[in-house]
Parts: sequence; C-alpha cells; structure tokens
Amino acid sequence: MSMRISVIHGPNLNLLGARQPEFYGSDSLDEVNRRIKRRGEELGLDVRILWSNHEGEIIDAIHDAREWADAIIINPGALTHYSYSVRDALTAVRLPAIEVHLSNIHAREEFRRHSVVSPVVIGQIVGLGSLGYLLALEAIQRIVDASHT
Amino acid sequence: MSMRISVIHGPNLNLLGARQPEFYGSDSLDEVNRRIKRRGEELGLDVRILWSNHEGEIIDAIHDAREWADAIIINPGALTHYSYSVRDALTAVRLPAIEVHLSNIHAREEFRRHSVVSPVVIGQIVGLGSLGYLLALEAIQRIVDASHT
Amino acid sequence: MSMRISVIHGPNLNLLGARQPEFYGSDSLDEVNRRIKRRGEELGLDVRILWSNHEGEIIDAIHDAREWADAIIINPGALTHYSYSVRDALTAVRLPAIEVHLSNIHAREEFRRHSVVSPVVIGQIVGLGSLGYLLALEAIQRIVDASHT
Amino acid sequence: MSMRISVIHGPNLNLLGARQPEFYGSDSLDEVNRRIKRRGEELGLDVRILWSNHEGEIIDAIHDAREWADAIIINPGALTHYSYSVRDALTAVRLPAIEVHLSNIHAREEFRRHSVVSPVVIGQIVGLGSLGYLLALEAIQRIVDASHT
Amino acid sequence: MSMRISVIHGPNLNLLGARQPEFYGSDSLDEVNRRIKRRGEELGLDVRILWSNHEGEIIDAIHDAREWADAIIINPGALTHYSYSVRDALTAVRLPAIEVHLSNIHAREEFRRHSVVSPVVIGQIVGLGSLGYLLALEAIQRIVDASHT
Amino acid sequence: MSMRISVIHGPNLNLLGARQPEFYGSDSLDEVNRRIKRRGEELGLDVRILWSNHEGEIIDAIHDAREWADAIIINPGALTHYSYSVRDALTAVRLPAIEVHLSNIHAREEFRRHSVVSPVVIGQIVGLGSLGYLLALEAIQRIVDASHT
Amino acid sequence: MSMRISVIHGPNLNLLGARQPEFYGSDSLDEVNRRIKRRGEELGLDVRILWSNHEGEIIDAIHDAREWADAIIINPGALTHYSYSVRDALTAVRLPAIEVHLSNIHAREEFRRHSVVSPVVIGQIVGLGSLGYLLALEAIQRIVDASHT
Amino acid sequence: MSMRISVIHGPNLNLLGARQPEFYGSDSLDEVNRRIKRRGEELGLDVRILWSNHEGEIIDAIHDAREWADAIIINPGALTHYSYSVRDALTAVRLPAIEVHLSNIHAREEFRRHSVVSPVVIGQIVGLGSLGYLLALEAIQRIVDASHT
Amino acid sequence: MSMRISVIHGPNLNLLGARQPEFYGSDSLDEVNRRIKRRGEELGLDVRILWSNHEGEIIDAIHDAREWADAIIINPGALTHYSYSVRDALTAVRLPAIEVHLSNIHAREEFRRHSVVSPVVIGQIVGLGSLGYLLALEAIQRIVDASHT
Amino acid sequence: MSMRISVIHGPNLNLLGARQPEFYGSDSLDEVNRRIKRRGEELGLDVRILWSNHEGEIIDAIHDAREWADAIIINPGALTHYSYSVRDALTAVRLPAIEVHLSNIHAREEFRRHSVVSPVVIGQIVGLGSLGYLLALEAIQRIVDASHT
Amino acid sequence: MSMRISVIHGPNLNLLGARQPEFYGSDSLDEVNRRIKRRGEELGLDVRILWSNHEGEIIDAIHDAREWADAIIINPGALTHYSYSVRDALTAVRLPAIEVHLSNIHAREEFRRHSVVSPVVIGQIVGLGSLGYLLALEAIQRIVDASHT
Amino acid sequence: MSMRISVIHGPNLNLLGARQPEFYGSDSLDEVNRRIKRRGEELGLDVRILWSNHEGEIIDAIHDAREWADAIIINPGALTHYSYSVRDALTAVRLPAIEVHLSNIHAREEFRRHSVVSPVVIGQIVGLGSLGYLLALEAIQRIVDASHT
Repeated sequence: MSMRISVIHGPNLNLLGARQPEFYGSDSLDEVNRRIKRRGEELGLDVRILWSNHEGEIIDAIHDAREWADAIIINPGALTHYSYSVRDALTAVRLPAIEVHLSNIHAREEFRRHSVVSPVVIGQIVGLGSLGYLLALEAIQRIVDASHT
Repeated sequence: MSMRISVIHGPNLNLLGARQPEFYGSDSLDEVNRRIKRRGEELGLDVRILWSNHEGEIIDAIHDAREWADAIIINPGALTHYSYSVRDALTAVRLPAIEVHLSNIHAREEFRRHSVVSPVVIGQIVGLGSLGYLLALEAIQRIVDASHT
Repeated sequence: MSMRISVIHGPNLNLLGARQPEFYGSDSLDEVNRRIKRRGEELGLDVRILWSNHEGEIIDAIHDAREWADAIIINPGALTHYSYSVRDALTAVRLPAIEVHLSNIHAREEFRRHSVVSPVVIGQIVGLGSLGYLLALEAIQRIVDASHT
Repeated sequence: MSMRISVIHGPNLNLLGARQPEFYGSDSLDEVNRRIKRRGEELGLDVRILWSNHEGEIIDAIHDAREWADAIIINPGALTHYSYSVRDALTAVRLPAIEVHLSNIHAREEFRRHSVVSPVVIGQIVGLGSLGYLLALEAIQRIVDASHT
Repeated sequence: MSMRISVIHGPNLNLLGARQPEFYGSDSLDEVNRRIKRRGEELGLDVRILWSNHEGEIIDAIHDAREWADAIIINPGALTHYSYSVRDALTAVRLPAIEVHLSNIHAREEFRRHSVVSPVVIGQIVGLGSLGYLLALEAIQRIVDASHT
Repeated sequence: MSMRISVIHGPNLNLLGARQPEFYGSDSLDEVNRRIKRRGEELGLDVRILWSNHEGEIIDAIHDAREWADAIIINPGALTHYSYSVRDALTAVRLPAIEVHLSNIHAREEFRRHSVVSPVVIGQIVGLGSLGYLLALEAIQRIVDASHT
Repeated sequence: MSMRISVIHGPNLNLLGARQPEFYGSDSLDEVNRRIKRRGEELGLDVRILWSNHEGEIIDAIHDAREWADAIIINPGALTHYSYSVRDALTAVRLPAIEVHLSNIHAREEFRRHSVVSPVVIGQIVGLGSLGYLLALEAIQRIVDASHT
Repeated sequence: MSMRISVIHGPNLNLLGARQPEFYGSDSLDEVNRRIKRRGEELGLDVRILWSNHEGEIIDAIHDAREWADAIIINPGALTHYSYSVRDALTAVRLPAIEVHLSNIHAREEFRRHSVVSPVVIGQIVGLGSLGYLLALEAIQRIVDASHT
Repeated sequence: MSMRISVIHGPNLNLLGARQPEFYGSDSLDEVNRRIKRRGEELGLDVRILWSNHEGEIIDAIHDAREWADAIIINPGALTHYSYSVRDALTAVRLPAIEVHLSNIHAREEFRRHSVVSPVVIGQIVGLGSLGYLLALEAIQRIVDASHT
Repeated sequence: MSMRISVIHGPNLNLLGARQPEFYGSDSLDEVNRRIKRRGEELGLDVRILWSNHEGEIIDAIHDAREWADAIIINPGALTHYSYSVRDALTAVRLPAIEVHLSNIHAREEFRRHSVVSPVVIGQIVGLGSLGYLLALEAIQRIVDASHT
Repeated sequence: MSMRISVIHGPNLNLLGARQPEFYGSDSLDEVNRRIKRRGEELGLDVRILWSNHEGEIIDAIHDAREWADAIIINPGALTHYSYSVRDALTAVRLPAIEVHLSNIHAREEFRRHSVVSPVVIGQIVGLGSLGYLLALEAIQRIVDASHT
Repeated sequence: MSMRISVIHGPNLNLLGARQPEFYGSDSLDEVNRRIKRRGEELGLDVRILWSNHEGEIIDAIHDAREWADAIIINPGALTHYSYSVRDALTAVRLPAIEVHLSNIHAREEFRRHSVVSPVVIGQIVGLGSLGYLLALEAIQRIVDASHT
C-alpha cells in the first residue's frame, strides 16, 4: 500500500495567483494542487488535499489524518501566527508534519516571523513558492521511510 | 449601476443591545442594520450585511466581496485583536475598507488598543456607536468615487 | 426546576485519552462526559455538554446558554490563549462561568500560562484532570444557589 | 443659540498640501478649514478653528473651550504620541471630544500607532483625509444633542 | 491510618472577613478553618492547619510536612507572586500540593496574574472563595489515593 | 537677606479645583498659591510663583531661577512624564529642587508612575494635595540652610 | 484622646548612620526616632515606633495598627520593591498611610524606582532624609483630621 | 547667491558653558555661534542661527527655513528624545538636515541613546563638541552642492 | 557552462555525527558533503563546498561567490543568531541564497528561533537533516533558471 | 588572631541531600558544614555557620557579621532572586562577600539566572557543588589578606 | 613628528561601490582610501588604513594602534551591532576614537540603530558617506591636539 | 598519565595588566599564565594554554580539546555575551568546562550580566581575579576525578 500524505492549506490560500503575486507567485491554488498531485504520483504517494478558511476545519482535517494518513504537509496561512489550536492538533495526532510557506515570512512584517506551529513539526520549507510543497513531499517520504526501518 | 458595499459584523455583535450597553449602546443588531440599510438607500448605495461568530465565514464573506462589492465596511469584533487571517483576507481582495468599532477601544482593556487589521484598511471610525457605520458609508462612497475619477 | 449547566469543551478535547496522556490522562472524552453527566445527576443538575473544534461554534454555544443555562463550565482548549472572541462571548452573556483545564497549564510551555478568558470568569480549576469538571459542577451549583438567596 | 464647536489643529498641520501629499492629501489647511466652516454652517453649528505649532497654545485653546464651546474636535498632530499635557487638558475641561487624523496612523511608523490622547476622547476618525473633520462635526453634533436629551 | 493533609495559609489571611470582603468573602479565618476541619472529617482525612505572616514559617511548615503529611494544600497569599523560596520548599519536599486562591487573581491587578508557585504544584483552584479549600481536600485525596494504586 | 524660592506650576494646574477634584482637591490655584505665600512668609522665605501651560516658559522660569532663587519647588504637571527638556533645565541650573504632585501618581494610570524629572531633583512629595507644597517649603529651607553650613 | 500614629521601619534601617551616609545621612536610627518622638509630642500625637528586619514582623505590626493606631507612616526599606505581602497588609487594615524614603530612590539603581507599596498608600515623601518622617507626621495628622470632619 | 543654512539650537543650549562643562565644554553659546558664523563666512555660506527653549518656536523656525534656507543644521537638545513634532516638521519641509549633539549621547543615560529625529535627517555628528557644528557646515555644503549637480 | 553553487558550512559543522546526533544526525560532514556533491552531479550543477569556524572566512567565501557562483546555499551554524556581518555579506553580493538548518531550530532553545540572516535570503529549509542541502540544490537550480528566463 | 568568616546558608539548604540530588548533590547540610569547618581549620580561619529559612534572620546574621567577621560567604538560596533586603544588608555592612550556588543556576529555570545579590558582592562561585564553599574560603582569605597589605 | 591615525574598516567595506550604492555611495574602498590618505596629508597626519572581514583582525589592529597611533577612526561595519569584543578592545587601548558610518544607520533596519561601540568612543559621524572619514580626521586631530595642551 | 586541562583565554585578555586594572588587576597575561602553570604542576595536571582575539581560533581550540584534553577552563572575554558559536563548540565536544571571569561581570554594564556560555558549562567562577583560574583548576580536577569513579 502506498504511503498516504495529507496536504492542508489554510485561510486565503484559495486566492493564490490573484493575491499579492510578488509574494505568492501567479499560479492559482488549482495549478499548485495539480502540481502537488503530479509530484505525489511520481513519488508513488497517495495524496489528499484540503483547503479551508475555517480554523475548525483545519483542525478537523488534522484529526482525520490520524485515521488515514502517514504524514502531514501543512501551510496554515495566517493561522501560523496565533492558532495554538492548530498547534495542539498537530501535537495530538502524533504524525510527522512539515510546515510550508510560499513567501519568505522572515522578510515581511514582524508578526510573520513568529510561528506557533514550528516547534511541533519536523521542519519548515519557507520562501520557495509552490516548489516548497513538492520538496516537502520528497522529504516527508524519506522521513517516514526512515522511521519505518 | 449603484455602488455596492459589503458590511461585515464579527463575533458577538448579534448580542448588541443586550451586551454591556455602557459600551455598545442599547440598540439591537437588527435596529443598527435597519439604520445602515436606510442610510445606504439615502446615499444611493447597494448594501449587503453579513454577521457571523465564525472567523472562517468572515473570511469567506471578504472573499465574496471580491466578486460583488466595491468596498467593505467591517467591524471584526474581538477578531480585531488577533485574526491575521482576516487581515490577510482584506489585503488579498484589494478592496477599499473601513474598520468600525462601536466603543472607544482605546479607553478599555489594554489588549483592545491593538488592531491587527488597521494597517491594511483605509481608516477607522471608533467610539461613535452605530453612527460609526453611517459615517463609514458616507466616507467609503466618497473614497470610491474619488478613486474612479 | 433543576439548575441547568452548559459544559463546553474546546478544540482537540475530542482526542482525550489518545492525546499526550502524561498531560491529559487516559480517559476518552466520552468517559469524561459520562462522569460529568453522572455527577450532574447526583447533584440534581441538568447538564448539557458541547464539544467543538470550531471557535465559532463555541461562541454560538455560549450565546445559546443565555437562553437555556444558569451557568457555564468551559475548557476552551488552546483557544484559552488567544480567543478574545470567546472571552467577549462569556462577558456578553453575563452568566457565572468556571474555567477548567485538565493539565497544569502553568507547568508547561510559557504561552499556556496566559489565559485571555480568566479575567471574565468566576474562577479556574487547573491541573486536576477530569476531576476538575466534577468539582466545577459542585462549585457552580453553590455559587448560583448563593446568588439566588 | 447654535451649538459651538472648537476645532483644534496641532503642529505641522499648517503645511497641509505641501507636506507628504501621499499621506495628507493635496489641499491646504485654508481649504480644509473652509470646508469645515461650510459644513458647520450646513449643520447649523458655530465653529471656531485654531491651529498652533505650540503645545502650550493647544492646551490654552482646550482650556478656552471650557468657556465657549460645547465640544472639541482635535487633530493633535505628532503631539498625539507623547503630549500627556494635551491629554490632561482634554480630561480637565470635561467636554466631549473627537480625535481626527488625516492619514491612517496605523499603516505608518510604529510610534504613530500609539495615541496618548485616545483614552480620554469619545472616539477617533482616522485615515479618511479632511473628510474626517466633516464626519466628526456631524458625529459630535449628534452626541451633544443626545446628551442634552 | 488516615491520610494526612497539611493546610497552609500565608500572609494576611488572618484578616479574612475583615479584609476586602468583595474579594475574599465575609467569613473569618476561624470559620473557614472550621469548615476545612469538618470537610476533612467527612472525608476521613487528618487535617492540620497553619497560618503565618512569616515566609520563613511557611517554609518551615512545608518542610515539616515532609515528616508528617501525605499532601499539602497551600494558599501562599501575596507570597504567591515573588517567593521563590516557598516554591523551592514545595519542590524540595516532593509532596503532592494544590494551590488555592480565594479571589480570582486573574481579574485583579496585573501582578496577581503571575504565580511563581504554580509550576511546581499539581494544580490550582482559584476564585471560588473558601469552597476552594474544600474542593482541594476532595481532589488531593483522590490524587494521593490514585498514586498509591 | 531672606532665602528665595521659585515655585513653578506646569500645564493644567490653572484648572485646579475645577478639574477632577477626587484627585486634585477642590481648591483653586489662587487659593493654593495664597497658602504657599502665607506659609512662605511664616518661614521667612521670599517666594515667587509661576504657572504656565507652555513647556518653554517652564524652562525659561527654571533658567531665571539661576539668577534669582536659592531653590526650586516644581510640579511639572503632565510634563513630568516626558519632558526631558525640563529635566535638563533642572540639571543645568544646579539649584536644589523638590518635585511635588498633588495626587498619588502611583495609584492612577501606569504612565503616571514614571517621572523623567525625579532622578535630578532632591526628592518628591506626592499625593498629599496642596499640603505638599507647604511641606516642600519647609524641607527646602532646611536643606538650603544645611548646605550653607 | 490624642491621635495615634504607628511608625514602621523596615530591613536595614537599624544600620542608619553607619550605612552609606551619602544616601542615608549620618544620624543613627535612635537619633531619628528621638526626633520623630519629639515632633510627635509637639504635634500632640501619640507615636509608637517599630523596626524589624523581618517581613513577617512588619506585616504583624501593620495588623496590630488596626487595633491601636489612626494612621501609619512606613519606610519598608528594600521590601518596598517586592513585598506584595506588605502591600496587602496595608490594604487590608484600611488605615491612611504615608510611605517615606530617606534617599531619592529615583536617583539610584533602576530597581529602586518601582515601589509595590505606593499604589495603596495616600502618598510618598522621598529623598528628604529623616526630615521626611517629621513632614509625614504633620501631613498624616492633617489628613486624619480632615477625614474626621 | 550664496547657499543659506539655518542653524537651530534647542532647549537649554543657552546655558552652554555654565552647564555641565564635562559634557558640553566651557564655551558659551555666544562663542559657539561666533565660531559658526566665522566658519560659515570662510565657506561662503549665509548662516542664520536661532535658539529657543520653546518646542513651538523650533518648529516655526524649521517651517521658516522652507522659505529661506537651502539646508538645516539642528541640535534639538532634549527634544531629540521625544518631540515627534520636531521630527514631522523636518520631514515636512523636505530640506537636507544634519543633527548635531555636543556630547556623546551614547555614553550617558539610556534615554539619550534614542533620537526620534535621526531617521528623518541625512546624518548625525555626535560627541565632538562645538566642532560638530563646523563640520556639519562643511558637510551640508558639499551635500547640497552634490544634489545640485 | 553548468550552473555554479557555493555551499557554505559555518562553525561547529565539522563535528557533525559526533555532535548531539539527536539534533544533527549521525553522518559526518564528509558524508554529507559527498551526498551534496553527488546530488549536484545528478542535477548538472558545479558545486563548491567550504566549511569554516571563522566568521571572517565565511564572509570572505560569500564575497568570493560573487566572482564564481550563481547562487549560495548556506548553513551559518550559530552565526545565524548574531552575525549581522554574514547577513550584510549576503546582501552585498546580491546572489540568490537559501539558508539550511539541519535541526528544527524552532523546537530548541529560544535564542535559536531568531535568525538575523533569514530576511536577506530567498528562503529556508529547516529541520530536515542533511536532506535539506539536497532539496536546496534542487530549489536553487529552479530559482536561478526561472530568473534567467 | 585568626581571620573570621561568617558562612550563611539561606532557605531550603537544610534539605540538602534529600532535595533534588541531580542539582544539589547527595550530601546533607551537616556533611557540607563539617567539610567547611575542616577546610577552615586547615586554612587557619575561624568559621561560623548559620542557616535559616527566614529572610529576617539572614539579614540579622549579615548585620552581626559587622561586629564579628572579616568576611562573608553566602548562599542565599532562592532569596538570591528577589531579596533586595539581603542585598542591602550586604551593602550596608561593607564586608567582602562571596556568593556561592551549589547548582549551575544558569542551566535551570530562567528566573534563576538573575541574582539581585551579585552586583554587591566581590564574586560568585556557581555550579561546583559543596566544593564551591571550600574554594570560597580560600578565595576570601586571600582577598582579605591582600586588602590588609 | 606628525600625529598618527589608525583608520580601521570592518566587514564588507571592501565591497564599497558595488554594494547597495543607495546606502553606501558608488565609490570603491580604494577610492575612499585615497581620499582619506590625501586629506591626511593635507592635515599633516600620518595615516595607516586597515580593512578586514575578520573580527579578530579588527581587534588585533586596535591593539596594534596602542604601539603606533595617537588615535583611531573606526567603521566597524556590522560588528557595530554585536561585537562587544571590538568595544572592549577600544576601551582597553585607551586611545581617542571616532566611529564613522557611511549610511544613516538610524534610517534603516531597527537593529542598526543600536551600536555597542558608541558608548566607548568620543563621538560618531553618521550618514555623511565617505566625507565622514575626512571630517573625522579633522576632528580627531583637533581633539588630540587639545588634549596635549 | 596525568589529567590534561585546556585553558582558553578570549579576546583582549592579552592586554591584562595594561587594561582597566580596577577591573582586571595589574598582572600581565604572562604572569597569570605562569601562575596557572605552576598551580597545574602542584596539582599534577598537564595544562595547555591558548589565547586568541579570534572567535574562530577559540572554537578551533575547543574542538582540539576533544582530542587532547580531559576538561576545559575558559574565559571567553566579551565573546561571553554573544558568541553562540563558542557555546555550541563547548556543547559539541562534551568535555566538562568551567567559565572564569576576572572581574565581577554582575557589577558592571548591564550587557555583561548575560552569558550565552553559562548554560552549557558546569559552573562559573566570577570576580576573583586571576585566582579564579587557580580555583578552577582545583575544581575541575575533582570533578573529572569524581566522574571517573
């Protein structure tokens, strides 16, 4: 059975492409998701993608991953900076997770430099645009593989 | 075609009138909304009003305004003080917006003095009760008109 | 008519038992709720219990308590640390409330030491596991009784 | 007898139009004052306007308002951020007052986000250019009228 | 042999009843102690109570509990906010302890929100008046019992 | 020749009596000044009194004291909290000075607890109403006398 | 019956004269106390003086004042900067109190600028050496007299 | 026509020579001004000098420079540390300006290390005594010349 | 000509494998470098690797990259947290750069959460062990390619 | 006559051996004191040792040292972190003093990193267990000897 | 013998001209050094110039100045903001020193506003480009001359 | 084989004796080193001493100690306050280390009170001059001996 990855996009990521392209690139979320799917297939991964503007749905999705997924890739959007609930959900499900940010959050407003989620994930890929998701797929696959050995 | 304004009320504003009238006045949200509607008609504006206790629905409503509205008037309630997601939504849709607070948030608890939303809107009207919404309608109309010239 | 108590559980409490048992104990939320119900019956209380991962639903539940309940017992989960909206909801409904935390939030990460909810409730019971809810039932009953005298 | 309003402009507002038009607009203080006067007449208000670069004269003008005015509209300029003396003057005269800022002080340097005056006035109108004064006239009229009922 | 509990009251608690009854209730310390004793008897506990205005005596009492008691219930009064010596004493004796505060320390002055003792006890019962001691007796009994299993 | 004392009142002190009598008492500045004069005569002191709402005039008055006075008694009003210029003036003239505040500045807003003037005067008399000036006269006389021995 | 004043000296004040005379003057505590006694007699006051290095004894003395004294004059020594217990004792006994410091605590180390006691006393006399006690006697007499009218 | 420079001295600089010569040197302001004048003549500059203890007059002088001067050299005295009004005046007139301080403000009290004016001038010359003004004349001449090329 | 990448390792990275393997993994720096080289070859990149414990040599290497490389991959070790000189070097050479950290710096000591380098690079890959370098190679190649289009 | 050293142990040091041996070692205070005595004899020192859980007794002991001792070795226990009274006592008696801590206070909780006592003693020996006292004896002997030359 | 000046350039100054010309100007370090040399010759000074990217070499150069130079002119580059070692070196050699910065460090990132070096030099010349070095030469010559008188 | 100790001196320690003798004593580094050597011989220790002004060389020396030494005694000079690289080196080599400072770093500038190195060494000896090194030799010998048992 192939490894299963839950990819979770947080608030405002649906506006990708239309929203501040200098930070987030000009591809729509659909295009990004297609690329994620394609890369997942190349790597032999079973990828499910969820997006929501609702913190509660993000938390529910993380909980659901407990039943279904081997790992999580998450871009919590602006929830990154205050949602201790998302953080606690990630801790609670005890799945390996990688945090992705499209833009370099350290080169923008001060508040974006602090992630409440970072201390409970394995690592972060930041500032590399949608490529970040693809690299995260590759990384999480190796990390899960290694932990199974 | 008349100018279209999306008016958005955040958490707990449904309790208006019943809730701490020394801060928020004794009118119910329905009464306030009627006044907003009436003033909108006087000014020749097409006004839609949304209230929600759910951050996600507030964000969705801001996104929807992209398709429909020329401008936004928003009172994010207590989300004002922590919802970077609402802030990012307002930035993403690139519509002129005015932030309204019924009570003088600078004369109450310390945490109310900081709005994470203020830096991304045009301006604020604070402490003038439900009159603030009516003034905001007048102001946003002039601002949108001016930007069309 | 018996006294009515609304018990509200916040995000991630559904994972009780499965989640970090060193902090939260090994009982599931169902077991905890059964114990709350049983203790309520012993005390002659009418107890309703709500859990949600959604801040908006927590706020709605607090508002609903206005119509139905005499008092609130709330464990806001990680919302404790940032949800000024939950705080404002508790203030707005003007019902006596007790805040419960299963783990000792003062013996964990720094951010858990600050509750934005504490200043608007009657008191807190912290670190005593699910027993905290049972003690809170007993306490809130006496407090409501005393205020009726 | 018509209601009397004292409008007070603080330091550097005399340079309006010439000074950073991207923040303050391109109208001169004279033009803004004419508009204030005209709007006052429309509303049946007796309006007196004072401008000074001297903190002491601002304080004197606030004191004088005690004898003459029913309310104050004040844009303290940069005194907003440090003049506890202006704040105490506003408190001492016990007249309703509205604070106006032409630019959105929350979207500029960090220091502009803190107003020492805000906690002692009724409310603020911020970021709406010279329109802010006109809206303030309308608001203060209603507020004074309401308090006389 | 019955379980033995050391109840320790810190500075100024002798003035209970006379002191700010809006915060601390109108019962004297004697009355509170009688109620503690009675509840202890109901629960089959051997309870000893000490009060002192002297930090050194509080520390001595905690040390003495090492020889005699199975658990500690402590209200350190204002020592809560600075006495790292009391904190170290509680750590050193390695007995389960519950911290009790009569008033809701989170709804008063800012300094009262920080307890230096909280990180080294099992939990806190705050804001429930003298009832807090009675609930603490019940809780500590269960906790000690559970740890003996 | 009798000792000469310069008494300096800062902004808003002219409103004494009319202004927040719960903090500042109900006597007018004229009455307070008469009392200061009378007490000065009793003590054989030559007292000159200046009041101004203008920081610049306060500074000028401190400079003038260099030529005329043996000591300064100053209540800088709200300038206390930010006027490093007044502080530097006091340092520059090298006269013994006592700082007086009518109200207990430590029992009011947080910002009033910090005086930029305190580190460069001999001492402070705070919270004792207009009596503070009379005690300051007595104190400064003894201090100047002692320094002449 | 004459008015009764409890004068309380905190830690290290017994070393007066021997200790850093540049800050505290060269008179011993005995000499200072004699002067306080003499001034008390002149004013027709019944003065009792207590000194202790023990925080607990300071608190006990404040409590005792409840039974005996009409007012308190207190120099808490270094307890000023951390003893919330002494603060609470002063609040609890509800007697008018004046805080005295021999040296100008605002012209020394940073930590001395913050007094936890100041917000709960009537006022402070700071930096005037032992004269501060004598002025405090005079002030407290007038304040108690005024409150009896 | 020769280049015109406005030199502006802030509060307390009139006491130069008499005031803390270890920081400010022993020359009077008259001597310093003579030296500035002489150096101006050597460089072929038309120099006008203003001194005031009044913040408002400093601001007025900066505004006047708009009409007359090609550049500003300013030592705002202690206004440096809080006068956002002086800062805004310098921004508003859009003239090149150099900030001069006689003493090394970084080697004295902590508050002197922060200048609210520095971010809006071209540069600073600090700690070089009255020579600082002479170097500033030379520098501003070159900078204005360069900008005219 | 193939794209050229300068890979720079900062202080203590030579101890890789021997040093805290729970954070940094058990591979030696030689093994990591071999893997970087191999991955570079696969991608058709010309990779040069430098390691130094000396901040100055790191800066020199960044400067040298100006002449030779198309992009930089840097793990500044603990210099990350204070070396504004390394930051300025990266800014000065104007080459695209990716910051790599082996361990999750957000899950360790507080000081490790702040990188002075992050605001001037394109992005970060954090917590993914030596895999981070390999992903960075892939990312930087795409980014440089994209910028050449 | 031999040199006389006062060794003072603060709160909770009586529990040495029993208390957190991973920090404080497994020797009892009696054993440590015997070792101190023995080392004192070897060095020809007259050593007196005091332990107390009472801040007041620690202060008294420091004062007594004025009459009897040539130097002080003090481990103030947790008083280290807040007792400005102990600090002032050490300053007041003007004896050379060395501060000893058994555990490395910089490798534990944040609050332990700040000692209010350190600025007024000669030096500190930290983290070397009971050996710290023995080294302090040797050091203080040399320092006192050197000051007598 | 002519006066000898050691001019020291810190990290990244070798990239002058190439690096952010909007901040640092377009002249190369060679050109700046030639201008420094030429100005030195005009003033009759013996000038030696050192540049290094290595903190250790900067410190060595400051130490060497002890043997050779009468004064130091130093632009520590980004070491300005953290190198307490450079600061201590400047203190240790006890030579007069002037700190030069090409750009206005107060008009850029927040971290650049704090110099750890400023408190131990005579003064600073900031924001005047390479002219700053030439003015510093002139200033240091006068200061050394004056100290020889 | 005798125990081997690496003694490492950081920046500016070569100026010992010449540099601020009120803090550092009047002995040169050579004299101090001779004393260290002699004491090492007395204790039967093999001591190697390194001094450098270069952070990189300090790190290299710590790494070299891995191969050669049983323990480290280090005085990092001002690197103490910012060099997380030195800290990481000490952690990485896993040798017992003692931190020595000649002067009492807690009685000087605020920045000296914070050591980034302290949390990763065994302990500190501070303020005892060059004697500190000798005591550290004795201590480290006992600690290494004990760990071998």
